[in-house]
Amino acid sequence: MELFDYLALYADSDYYPFHMPGHKRNPESGLPVGIYQYDITEIDGFDNLHQPESIIKDAEQRAAGLYDSEETYFLVNGSTAGILSAVSAVSKRAGKLIIARNCHKAVYHAAFLNRMELHYVYPHIHGDYDIAGAVDANDIENVIRGILEEAKAEAGMAAELIAGVVVTSPTYDGIVSDIKEIGNIVHRYGIPLIVDQAHGAHFGIHPGYPENAVREGADLVIHSVHKTLAAPTQTALLHKNGNLVDSEFVRKYLRIYQSSSPSYILMGGIDRAVRMAVQEGYQRLDRLLSMRNAFLEEAAHCHWIKICPFTEPGKLVISVKGSFMTGQMLYDILRDKYRLQMEMASGSYVVAILSMMDREEGLKRLSAALSEVDREIHDYQKISGWGSVTGFEEKQKNIKKERITAGLDLRPKIRLNLWGAYTVPNMEMEIGRAEGQVMAEFVNLYPPGIPLLVPGEVLDSAMIEVIESYLKNGYEIQGITENKVKVLKA
Amino acid sequence: MELFDYLALYADSDYYPFHMPGHKRNPESGLPVGIYQYDITEIDGFDNLHQPESIIKDAEQRAAGLYDSEETYFLVNGSTAGILSAVSAVSKRAGKLIIARNCHKAVYHAAFLNRMELHYVYPHIHGDYDIAGAVDANDIENVIRGILEEAKAEAGMAAELIAGVVVTSPTYDGIVSDIKEIGNIVHRYGIPLIVDQAHGAHFGIHPGYPENAVREGADLVIHSVHKTLAAPTQTALLHKNGNLVDSEFVRKYLRIYQSSSPSYILMGGIDRAVRMAVQEGYQRLDRLLSMRNAFLEEAAHCHWIKICPFTEPGKLVISVKGSFMTGQMLYDILRDKYRLQMEMASGSYVVAILSMMDREEGLKRLSAALSEVDREIHDYQKISGWGSVTGFEEKQKNIKKERITAGLDLRPKIRLNLWGAYTVPNMEMEIGRAEGQVMAEFVNLYPPGIPLLVPGEVLDSAMIEVIESYLKNGYEIQGITENKVKVLKA
Repeated sequence: MELFDYLALYADSDYYPFHMPGHKRNPESGLPVGIYQYDITEIDGFDNLHQPESIIKDAEQRAAGLYDSEETYFLVNGSTAGILSAVSAVSKRAGKLIIARNCHKAVYHAAFLNRMELHYVYPHIHGDYDIAGAVDANDIENVIRGILEEAKAEAGMAAELIAGVVVTSPTYDGIVSDIKEIGNIVHRYGIPLIVDQAHGAHFGIHPGYPENAVREGADLVIHSVHKTLAAPTQTALLHKNGNLVDSEFVRKYLRIYQSSSPSYILMGGIDRAVRMAVQEGYQRLDRLLSMRNAFLEEAAHCHWIKICPFTEPGKLVISVKGSFMTGQMLYDILRDKYRLQMEMASGSYVVAILSMMDREEGLKRLSAALSEVDREIHDYQKISGWGSVTGFEEKQKNIKKERITAGLDLRPKIRLNLWGAYTVPNMEMEIGRAEGQVMAEFVNLYPPGIPLLVPGEVLDSAMIEVIESYLKNGYEIQGITENKVKVLKA
Repeated sequence: MELFDYLALYADSDYYPFHMPGHKRNPESGLPVGIYQYDITEIDGFDNLHQPESIIKDAEQRAAGLYDSEETYFLVNGSTAGILSAVSAVSKRAGKLIIARNCHKAVYHAAFLNRMELHYVYPHIHGDYDIAGAVDANDIENVIRGILEEAKAEAGMAAELIAGVVVTSPTYDGIVSDIKEIGNIVHRYGIPLIVDQAHGAHFGIHPGYPENAVREGADLVIHSVHKTLAAPTQTALLHKNGNLVDSEFVRKYLRIYQSSSPSYILMGGIDRAVRMAVQEGYQRLDRLLSMRNAFLEEAAHCHWIKICPFTEPGKLVISVKGSFMTGQMLYDILRDKYRLQMEMASGSYVVAILSMMDREEGLKRLSAALSEVDREIHDYQKISGWGSVTGFEEKQKNIKKERITAGLDLRPKIRLNLWGAYTVPNMEMEIGRAEGQVMAEFVNLYPPGIPLLVPGEVLDSAMIEVIESYLKNGYEIQGITENKVKVLKA
């Protein structure tokens, strides 16, 4: 039986609830069917997420089996809770944390909460597609060596200085790093590896997709099951392997960062998605691969629109680089004219997320739409510099291809550590006048939620230019209100 | 329009999803109806919980209106996220935190994360019902004065030493403290007051129930909308008022402690419940009061079973104190024979949670059941010391009325602060042999999740006796595995 089966049985019973939740399974609550019926708390016969002993424990073990993990924990506060717990757990080992600069903001938050000192590894930039690429194992080793040199310490001391290494693989754009190689190197120094594999919960199930980071040797791995498996939003898994990280600390922090009233709707949804991945995952991912290949064949006829060839198969990075069009324009056309809702728009591309639940209809509609748009780009560019692509007369003004590598090539200078800069008094300042100021707040591009600027970093003119370009083109920037940034008081 | 209306419209549209969640609104996902249809991420036309500007902002303002709050934030990681954020926000003011000892474990976790020094106020114990009572404003003032004296500081310095005061009102058992009076006193010292009113989201709507803590002057108030309103599990609200707490820090920590992929199912559920409370709350709470009064009239005929008269009307504390029966026995009878599921069992009572969604049927079934059980207790006690109450022959052995005041009268000695004791190496030890050891882990009685022991406290023989009695009687104790506690290494 899976969690939803237990919930269905209970929903059908004649038990009267004198307990939470307050909707009391009463249809008058106005909650959609399924929610009010299946939403219960840890009553008798059910289990406790924070000390699982029966049905949740079984469900977690099924999930561990799917990924070949030693320990797997359900997350109802998203990958965020997994990242906070993973980093907090290793923070007990040492004070420095090496992270890929394109890590999710939750990694930065975890470092802040634990007052850790951040050291960055910068991913390579793929100029052809304006996307951030993989993180190189050698670059990580160089950062480790730099820390050792600065501390005048032997290699054997690395684990006493460095609490862990965190990388994101795949990225939001579908770029995969060589986790095996990175793991080999950091383990040689006795340092644990945390892989934010939020976007790769479908890895390791079918040979047409990359192997999962658990099997590749990472110590802590976070999988967001709502991104590429069939689970509901805000659900994820945390896997723990090996002996470098103390399981007790992992569990301690999971209890801290997650609600003491976890939703059975979410937990049931995780179990359902895991079951499906176990039972039908291979066939569904196989079918998705065929659908994707058929799509790629069609898309290959496009002249201006290109599909990035080096993402993992679960993502489509659809590029209009080299044409007059921007990612945002393509995103708007696909949504407004073709009713195809992309995951996100970037400077010169859009990202489509595929999952094992995709239907052929969707990919066919997408390839047909792209063929039409490609023809329009072609006709339009043939006739004139700017012209008549449907509905975009207004937007054609002031178009500028922003650098959408999230400022990853800018590498802002660090003046103050994160903990210090994020807890002291600050003031607002017009971004155009703030050159040389020290940041007091994160500036994130959303999605994907990667920091352009971290508190304690210096705002320089190149970064101001990038951010102003984002703002002008309507991207969602977190940390800036009415063109004002928060900077340290002098 | 409320959030679910937007979700319903989108579910009915012909947009094809190339975005998260991975179930792609595909019915084959096996998620219950309502969940897969309404579960979306922050796509166009929707809003972002972490920087709300449209439909979530509107919904939060509706919630603020219900409680007359200046600022109100939706919580998708339960009251836990609200408590963590509230305490973290005030932690920037000073290093000491005064809390009622019967605060939820999340308050302790927040103090741990922020490395704060805890000072306790102990609630009174109501001996007649074995429940923890209100927290006294004078007791809080005494703790403030004690801290001032120890620091040899003037009253005007209190706010530089003490970050805040945290009390729970109502408690899990429905006991309300005088928030107005407590607020007056702590504000006189310039200290902010945080009220964990998780169990009082229905306060301030109908004059038959207590006023809510926002209107009574608390600076930060947490309401769990899934407990007594009709919202789904894991949902809550955080209100912020006055100028003692920096709103920026509150928002900063909410972004840290909550998923960056918040569930629209949960957010929609909050909005639905708030709407209902606004539109029908008065009538529904009025009806609940009548149903409760009818129930009390029936229950008054009981000889052995008593309903605690000083809880707020949203709770029924059903006591069997003075009879041979325990709370757990009553709980089991009500569940197994009468199909009435209580919220929790304690040593000499059970707790039933009422909400505005209760149906007359439930309360009638409960009063009928209690009448029967009361008669059985009476008959049984008339015949003999122990006897023939249905199905409890086994349990009648070794029955002992535990002190279920969560060890609140024991006041363990503090040897080490929480932060220190919770981060250093520890070892497991049989509880029976651990007298005099310093705790390295919380020991919580669940529900309600209040610590019996906090890391850094000394385990004495009285506490060992209480805990062993809980274990013997089948209560859920978190922090003890196979009779072993975690203690500091010598």
